Amino acid sequence: MPTSVRFEQITAPEAPEFPGNIFSNCLKADNQVVLSGMVASAAAGGVIGGDSAYEQARACFAKIEKLVEAAGGSLADVAKLTIYLTDIADRPEIGRARKEFFDGRMPASTLIGVNALAGPEYKVEIEAIAFLEDGG
Amino acid sequence: MPTSVRFEQITAPEAPEFPGNIFSNCLKADNQVVLSGMVASAAAGGVIGGDSAYEQARACFAKIEKLVEAAGGSLADVAKLTIYLTDIADRPEIGRARKEFFDGRMPASTLIGVNALAGPEYKVEIEAIAFLEDGG
Amino acid sequence: MPTSVRFEQITAPEAPEFPGNIFSNCLKADNQVVLSGMVASAAAGGVIGGDSAYEQARACFAKIEKLVEAAGGSLADVAKLTIYLTDIADRPEIGRARKEFFDGRMPASTLIGVNALAGPEYKVEIEAIAFLEDGG
Repeated sequence: MPTSVRFEQITAPEAPEFPGNIFSNCLKADNQVVLSGMVASAAAGGVIGGDSAYEQARACFAKIEKLVEAAGGSLADVAKLTIYLTDIADRPEIGRARKEFFDGRMPASTLIGVNALAGPEYKVEIEAIAFLEDGG
Repeated sequence: MPTSVRFEQITAPEAPEFPGNIFSNCLKADNQVVLSGMVASAAAGGVIGGDSAYEQARACFAKIEKLVEAAGGSLADVAKLTIYLTDIADRPEIGRARKEFFDGRMPASTLIGVNALAGPEYKVEIEAIAFLEDGG
Repeated sequence: MPTSVRFEQITAPEAPEFPGNIFSNCLKADNQVVLSGMVASAAAGGVIGGDSAYEQARACFAKIEKLVEAAGGSLADVAKLTIYLTDIADRPEIGRARKEFFDGRMPASTLIGVNALAGPEYKVEIEAIAFLEDGG
């Protein structure tokens, strides 16, 4: 982490950082955990889940889970999800993946259909914000 | 509200929750009121305002108002709006509705044109974040 | 600033407010600095940078910098950027501009391709949230 960054950069092996040191996947700012939009990029390159929106969404949620845990919290601390889809018809599949990760937890959520994500291989991008309980 | 949710779920009759317990319209996290994107869905089913972007926006703002009030605040506590439109030409109509709810209050605001919302019947979706004065 | 606004409205000459008093470019809410999506609008009218996505992005980042500074912070306090592009092919150019402003600082970031921004002359809109160190 560059020394000039005043927030704590939160990392997890499952969520590879984008090359080039131009942004962070996750920062802790006061007691908030602020995440970039996660896509299903694999650490070894390529896309987790291929062209399955369901599998890509699971990969995004898994990254969010690992990052929030690395920050000292859990998925129960996620207050908001923002879900970007390139094909709105994938909405039920994304909902299925969400239920597997968030069942019984109900963050606020916005879902929109967009023109494009960071690469044409991505069908879904998911952003989250969490609030840690300890005020940390 | 499922017991595992650690935030206070804020509800209002005017803002029916999405079926299936997969997300919340509104949570209180610390002193922040975090809202999902609101659409003009009616409690009894169907769309408030039909194909009028102005009436749909009014319905969204009314839901935001009721939810923030249910959390103990008012529209004066809304710090940010994010407005998603399926047809950017509806922007003046959305502005007219906004002025009726927010006149003299001036939250930060982002407005973008998107490909799709949760259903083809929706012309606008509006998300908000509020900060309660008492530190919640 | 209308007296009914309970947040501190933050302004900077380089970031002209949208006419009509319908929203604020920037508010300070507790110790958070909440910004609207910035576009490359010039104070004197017209677009800074013409049809160059790189120059437009630089204008957006410069506005963000001036507003966060007016709030008592700096770009090092920016925790999150959300970047909306009308043409995803402009992504490398936006990245180049970002690096010039944020080199060594690495906020969280989401970048999506959208259908439309506030006017057809804009190629990029950039939103930010910052956390001031002093608890503001």
